[in-house]
Amino acid sequence: MTSFEDAGRLDAADPLAPKRQAFHLPDGVIYLDGNSLGAMPKRAPARLRTVLETEWAERLIRSWTESDWINLPLRVGDRVAPLIGAGPGEVVVGDSTSVNLYKCLGAARALRPDRRVILTEQDNFPTDNYIIEGIARSERMEIRYVPAGTDPREALDERVAVVLLTQVNYRTAAMHDLAAVTAAAHRAGAVMIWDLSHSVGVVPLDVRGAAVDFAVGCTYKYLNGGPGAPAFTYVAPAHAASVAQPLSGWMGHKTPFAFAQHYEPAAEIRRYLCGTPQILSLAALDESLAVWDGVDMSAVREKSLRMTQLFMDLVERHCAGHGLEIVTPRNAQRGSHVSIACAHGYPVIRAMVEGGVIGDFRAPDLMRFGFAPLYGSYAEVAEAVRIMQEILVTGAWRDPKYATVLAVT
Amino acid sequence: MTSFEDAGRLDAADPLAPKRQAFHLPDGVIYLDGNSLGAMPKRAPARLRTVLETEWAERLIRSWTESDWINLPLRVGDRVAPLIGAGPGEVVVGDSTSVNLYKCLGAARALRPDRRVILTEQDNFPTDNYIIEGIARSERMEIRYVPAGTDPREALDERVAVVLLTQVNYRTAAMHDLAAVTAAAHRAGAVMIWDLSHSVGVVPLDVRGAAVDFAVGCTYKYLNGGPGAPAFTYVAPAHAASVAQPLSGWMGHKTPFAFAQHYEPAAEIRRYLCGTPQILSLAALDESLAVWDGVDMSAVREKSLRMTQLFMDLVERHCAGHGLEIVTPRNAQRGSHVSIACAHGYPVIRAMVEGGVIGDFRAPDLMRFGFAPLYGSYAEVAEAVRIMQEILVTGAWRDPKYATVLAVT
Repeated sequence: MTSFEDAGRLDAADPLAPKRQAFHLPDGVIYLDGNSLGAMPKRAPARLRTVLETEWAERLIRSWTESDWINLPLRVGDRVAPLIGAGPGEVVVGDSTSVNLYKCLGAARALRPDRRVILTEQDNFPTDNYIIEGIARSERMEIRYVPAGTDPREALDERVAVVLLTQVNYRTAAMHDLAAVTAAAHRAGAVMIWDLSHSVGVVPLDVRGAAVDFAVGCTYKYLNGGPGAPAFTYVAPAHAASVAQPLSGWMGHKTPFAFAQHYEPAAEIRRYLCGTPQILSLAALDESLAVWDGVDMSAVREKSLRMTQLFMDLVERHCAGHGLEIVTPRNAQRGSHVSIACAHGYPVIRAMVEGGVIGDFRAPDLMRFGFAPLYGSYAEVAEAVRIMQEILVTGAWRDPKYATVLAVT
Repeated sequence: MTSFEDAGRLDAADPLAPKRQAFHLPDGVIYLDGNSLGAMPKRAPARLRTVLETEWAERLIRSWTESDWINLPLRVGDRVAPLIGAGPGEVVVGDSTSVNLYKCLGAARALRPDRRVILTEQDNFPTDNYIIEGIARSERMEIRYVPAGTDPREALDERVAVVLLTQVNYRTAAMHDLAAVTAAAHRAGAVMIWDLSHSVGVVPLDVRGAAVDFAVGCTYKYLNGGPGAPAFTYVAPAHAASVAQPLSGWMGHKTPFAFAQHYEPAAEIRRYLCGTPQILSLAALDESLAVWDGVDMSAVREKSLRMTQLFMDLVERHCAGHGLEIVTPRNAQRGSHVSIACAHGYPVIRAMVEGGVIGDFRAPDLMRFGFAPLYGSYAEVAEAVRIMQEILVTGAWRDPKYATVLAVT
């Protein structure tokens, strides 16, 4: 697939094409950053209006029971469950990925009290490693970093208590074999925690089949839950019932409204709740997840691989000679974004955004483009490459206005 | 103030009466549960519409900079700051009260590495004590519980590392002298953490003047931020710059978007962030806090004391002989709710809710009524007591339908 014309043929045959209608997409924009913040499902605003104007404003405190806010973290968890291969009552949604990682690390650590090592990758997503540093300090654990490009299975031994990996690398999109790595961790006697932030919604997942111990993930990327939408936590049922997590807040209590003096964790996944859930954000996610009803994940995966392949093929053919290097694997062990190393990647991305193609940049030199199978089209993929080519060929990116780094903080 | 007629006179002279217009209040309801979930400010839905339909749907990822989502936790913190006597840049909003307590306990504990005791009250709000249990386990600390009704200052000694108290008791509304207890904790060499959940928005606070070390609090009660709205954290500037907190997530990193391998906390209060903030809930709170612009906290306090006094006076005069006992202090050392012990409190509350008066019940026997000075009226206070009187006198609460306990979980 190396000509711009291939795109039209692929779109015509795309079984997911009708799903695009479920999303609000701004005019004149090709959005290739759904791996960072997913597009808004059209049904989200009406739900929020109901939550505010009826549930909060009219029913007030009664909505905790009458609108079942109290079980919303579990009900939303049940919507996420089929997307990761979990069963009902095995996933809960609330807090952030970072906070949930802390809970899982604390529980996992308690499952292996005689081991002292947490294994991670040097280029794991930063917050994963920062959270590991925090818990390693308080739990007096040692951190073993696997260098980028090395198979983490080679670093396993009898000292490793917990392995925490992100399945799809946020920079390169390289993807671990979830089942194989989990099995290796188990053979070494370690507990396996997966961060599925960059795979959920684009990669078919089977946490149960792979006997994963813990999994967390972000819902504002390919799950389109809205900015900062609360994150999910999966815990294998045997662990959920046997070990406590360190953030022992009242919503994870067996009987929160008995106001007992001492903490007693809820029997199952509910114990992974901590404080009062942020209902507005949670309701937007709940509504947004409805777009997944009836979606075939194998069709999603197929389209994801085709979109990323088309993009890489077109970039190689049409943008050669401009100092670009695709760092995303060409084999199928990849997620749904493509990263391209380029010394002048930052101004190129800035110029592309001004040209209507939204991707992002990851220091020091990566241009990153995400492909969301539910709302992206192949025509957009082709047009994005055409615009990139134009910017490279004309040297438009050399305009000094693109060199200024926009501070996000 | 013991006649129903006093209410009209008080409303006519109430300088805060016009503020009621800023809130949506349902018809036919007297809402005395704003201490649990505050009423909705009328301006909230329009803000959410903008956040969804413009910021999320149209600007997408660009809103982190263009709509300054990235600084929203600090901007909302700056709105909370004057309500607790903090300065700009000293308060951050995000996560839940429970999660924020964990952060503060971890940091406070690190400030006193040679001491091993956390001091709290037996009847502190349960989540405070549950979170203490969690951190005590991982940090190998000892918990000292002060029995209900005892002055916690008497339990201070040179072994106490941290004192964590809720200023206004969630059951009785009894209020600690924040400055005096903080000073006593400091004299004993302990670090002071206050949970201001039941005082912020009804009690004038001065965390700086009292040299408080850490304070957290809820924003969905008297601050009307919406269901499960994110909580605030205040940290004395000297501590914020000197000690790390255990939930070391990327949003608290010095340079989150440099994606550095190791955690280095931001210089100031920003380090109390952890994961990505839940923007929808945070934006609703931001907008709701605008109703506080220009509000005189001493007028709020005065009205709060008058409303609670009127309520207690009327209950004593008109509901005597029905087994009610007011457990809220009659002196000014109280917050803005009133609790009444009553063996048949549960069915009475249920009957009152059916009669249009929403209060709540706290096991084993407390009827609890909250008074929100920004939108409550004295006429409502009087009418609530009249309805309670009618239910008690007629015995309407004996209807078996009110005996069934509504499960919240």
